[in-house]
Amino acid sequence: MREVDRVSALRDTVQRWRCESQSIGFVATMGYLHAGHLSLVERARSENDRVVMSIFVNPTQFGPAEDLERYPRDLERDRRLAEQSGVDILFAPTVETMYPGGAESQQVWVDPGPLAAHMCGASRPGHFRGVVTVVSKLFHMVQPDRAYFGQKDGQQALIITRMARDLSFPVDVRIAPTVREPDGLALSSRNVFLSPDERAEAVVLSRSLQLTREAMSVGERDAHHLETMMRAFITETAPSARIDYVTVADLDSLQPIDGDIVGDALVALAVFFGSTRLIDNLMVRRLEDGLRFS
Amino acid sequence: MREVDRVSALRDTVQRWRCESQSIGFVATMGYLHAGHLSLVERARSENDRVVMSIFVNPTQFGPAEDLERYPRDLERDRRLAEQSGVDILFAPTVETMYPGGAESQQVWVDPGPLAAHMCGASRPGHFRGVVTVVSKLFHMVQPDRAYFGQKDGQQALIITRMARDLSFPVDVRIAPTVREPDGLALSSRNVFLSPDERAEAVVLSRSLQLTREAMSVGERDAHHLETMMRAFITETAPSARIDYVTVADLDSLQPIDGDIVGDALVALAVFFGSTRLIDNLMVRRLEDGLRFS
Repeated sequence: MREVDRVSALRDTVQRWRCESQSIGFVATMGYLHAGHLSLVERARSENDRVVMSIFVNPTQFGPAEDLERYPRDLERDRRLAEQSGVDILFAPTVETMYPGGAESQQVWVDPGPLAAHMCGASRPGHFRGVVTVVSKLFHMVQPDRAYFGQKDGQQALIITRMARDLSFPVDVRIAPTVREPDGLALSSRNVFLSPDERAEAVVLSRSLQLTREAMSVGERDAHHLETMMRAFITETAPSARIDYVTVADLDSLQPIDGDIVGDALVALAVFFGSTRLIDNLMVRRLEDGLRFS
Repeated sequence: MREVDRVSALRDTVQRWRCESQSIGFVATMGYLHAGHLSLVERARSENDRVVMSIFVNPTQFGPAEDLERYPRDLERDRRLAEQSGVDILFAPTVETMYPGGAESQQVWVDPGPLAAHMCGASRPGHFRGVVTVVSKLFHMVQPDRAYFGQKDGQQALIITRMARDLSFPVDVRIAPTVREPDGLALSSRNVFLSPDERAEAVVLSRSLQLTREAMSVGERDAHHLETMMRAFITETAPSARIDYVTVADLDSLQPIDGDIVGDALVALAVFFGSTRLIDNLMVRRLEDGLRFS
């Protein structure tokens, strides 16, 4: 594995690979790698000749009251895990490389528009503008054929997919399944902040999605009923949980569904345990032979 | 010259050139080519091994009351001029190619932010959002090394330059001098709409900029004085002119200058003759040995 922090070195290497007809997969991360990230590398590895991983804790996707400073970092460990998992290039730029002159001098942004109006976009104003802007910059630096994002950040993955289409990026965005702990908790770098009691209660996120899946499997379609059921389940079984949102949204427009679910849907929620905010989601697609959950 | 309308064919050819170490220059146009466009091709030709020109009248940069429908088009003539001027690939996509599913289904945009708050951005709400979004798409399709824009559309050229920097595009944006008629009128596809009387009066745009240049050369620095002088000159010498704006702005932030010009400046104006809107500008840079005008 080669570690680069300069954009020119990254571009030169990738361009050389491309001219040798090697395909390039890309995994963008904020580091503090866990098995979820490594599953993205594995997928990228299996579908491309080369894999580039970036590690960059992007300041522009954190609000002023959020956890940018306390976001967990361990570059030494990340390096080891990236190398073991088969990453060819680890791109770990500085803030100055990503935002020359500083993020506050940035004038032109990518705007996710109404896709960011609800769910995490409503709870974290400016978050997705920061995400799609930095992902655009990374795409321009890495110029991958395919890019892999985890479903755990569901709204993010869907917005980035749409961005690639709407801005005609020559990048195929692929969403990989959420990796979970044995009890169902979605892996997240932020799980490290949970106390033992919070960790035990945090299983309510995946359990409430499981309830929705079961309810839909037996015919429930009313978005409001599903949301109410999930909220009640969380409140009753996790006394220290504070619900940020529980939303059933259209999978394409990401607008909340009012009434029955008739097309594809994203069932998403965010729950605070103390100051730690966890998210999870379930995607529901209507196929000819019934619903497919992922 | 080869004409392509499919993105895949364009990408394949450009990628092959790149792997043969050939550099690619790009000239984005809305067609109805004139000597201004051809000067961009000539410059691109002299600085690159290959030149790609696009012709696309972009609907998303026209307001609902603007001249999208009446914008002049002559693809036959454009083809001939492009070929004669040494264009290697003419990319003339359909609206469906640029906006699959239609422009109204576009959700993610590039946002020029405060750079579009004044001058043409204020007169034409949404105009620059449409411009930078379509230029992003074209950059992703063509993947040029260098892209050339004319100074006549000064705010546009500066916003695109800034977009390339802020979004880390691997594209070097270059601004080429405005090409003018013998009497000073900046070439524009829209000049064809002027009546003979309007055409004669339209020289006030470049003349008023020339006055500013002379006034600054003898020491005038007050932005408000310069604007007032230009407005008075236009009103007095062109009875059919209707001023849209006359602005002295900071060349970097594109915000109007209040008081003295101390750094680099963009002196820009837009004037209606009937329903035809013409623009022109003067860039002023402060060098060690004095002012440089362009």
